[in-house]
Amino acid sequence: MAEIRTPKPAARTPDTTRRSERSRRAIYDAALSLVGEVGYPKTTIEGIAARAGVGKQTIYRWWPSKAAVLLEAFLDLGKRAAEAAGADSGSYEIPDTGDLAADLKAVLRATVDELVDPQYEAPSRALTAAGIVDPVLGAEFVEKLLEPSLQLYVKRLRAAQEAGDVRPDIDPRVALELLVAPLAHRWLLRTLPLTHAYADAVVDCALGGLTPR
Amino acid sequence: MAEIRTPKPAARTPDTTRRSERSRRAIYDAALSLVGEVGYPKTTIEGIAARAGVGKQTIYRWWPSKAAVLLEAFLDLGKRAAEAAGADSGSYEIPDTGDLAADLKAVLRATVDELVDPQYEAPSRALTAAGIVDPVLGAEFVEKLLEPSLQLYVKRLRAAQEAGDVRPDIDPRVALELLVAPLAHRWLLRTLPLTHAYADAVVDCALGGLTPR
Repeated sequence: MAEIRTPKPAARTPDTTRRSERSRRAIYDAALSLVGEVGYPKTTIEGIAARAGVGKQTIYRWWPSKAAVLLEAFLDLGKRAAEAAGADSGSYEIPDTGDLAADLKAVLRATVDELVDPQYEAPSRALTAAGIVDPVLGAEFVEKLLEPSLQLYVKRLRAAQEAGDVRPDIDPRVALELLVAPLAHRWLLRTLPLTHAYADAVVDCALGGLTPR
Repeated sequence: MAEIRTPKPAARTPDTTRRSERSRRAIYDAALSLVGEVGYPKTTIEGIAARAGVGKQTIYRWWPSKAAVLLEAFLDLGKRAAEAAGADSGSYEIPDTGDLAADLKAVLRATVDELVDPQYEAPSRALTAAGIVDPVLGAEFVEKLLEPSLQLYVKRLRAAQEAGDVRPDIDPRVALELLVAPLAHRWLLRTLPLTHAYADAVVDCALGGLTPR
């Protein structure tokens, strides 16, 4: 019995935190792999709990719904990807080296790499497909996941307007769609290969325009 | 018994054709409404047959699979839309009035109208979502439905290059994605309203480019 008290609170807290953190990551990974395998409609809290090796009450204590679990799993994924790319989590933004074309190519090439990453392609497709047919789920993912990342383009394009590199009469919120939508289109519909060369071509076409100068 | 022979073959053939045509359209409509309501995975030949009021053998006689039924239902929809827009079926193409911006705005505005048409939005979303997670279905829809319509843009952009209205160094197959992908992106993900004004803005951004001239 005495042993129960042996670890001091100061030592036990990091253990609990680590254990929570491990459970949280296990739940994220279980949610992502499960939705990639069976699709969003058939993914359940029970299934995620079983695969993560936790009780379903653990999940319900932290998240109100499977949509909330998946949303945070993808947010965490983005955070991990940003950290892997060397950015501070929470302060990720599109670089501004002063060379707009180079900065956009760098971020769109990284987007290509993320989209075709075999580890996360299936869950990303499953979630996107679910949001396409389910407006409530779709709105939640746009609000919490997609739009914040699109706002990074708005910020970079506004800076480019201030620097005189983008026409002042253009709405950055529209302009960014000429950059990101072609990549999403190829990825979602698998029309043609999604490559770095394609990302570069999209940037060149969008910046220079299709008509002769 | 004599009555059985009363209608002459010459009279019976148009009747049969009309009846076949009616059944075919009923099957298309049933397939489109069903897939919009229950999604692609739960749509069955039996369900389509029941709703169309035909035997399932009728469907199997004409089509090998539910994917084939739905594909033809959408092809027929496109044909009807083109006919309604005044084009000859089978020879639909993007108009070439000599004013590239006006021609592209006209076709993209019509695309907006088709995408937001409440009668067909649900089945279109269901099919697109199914193709996003099912590569075989996705490839079939791209090959038979999407790519032929994208080739209309290739043709129009090539004509524009010959007329000197589009830069000769641009690949029309890439350039068209800057026009169609932003509309598809807004429609699929419901990020912001899909309007004629947006179609116009996409054309202006893509043709003129984002950088100052």
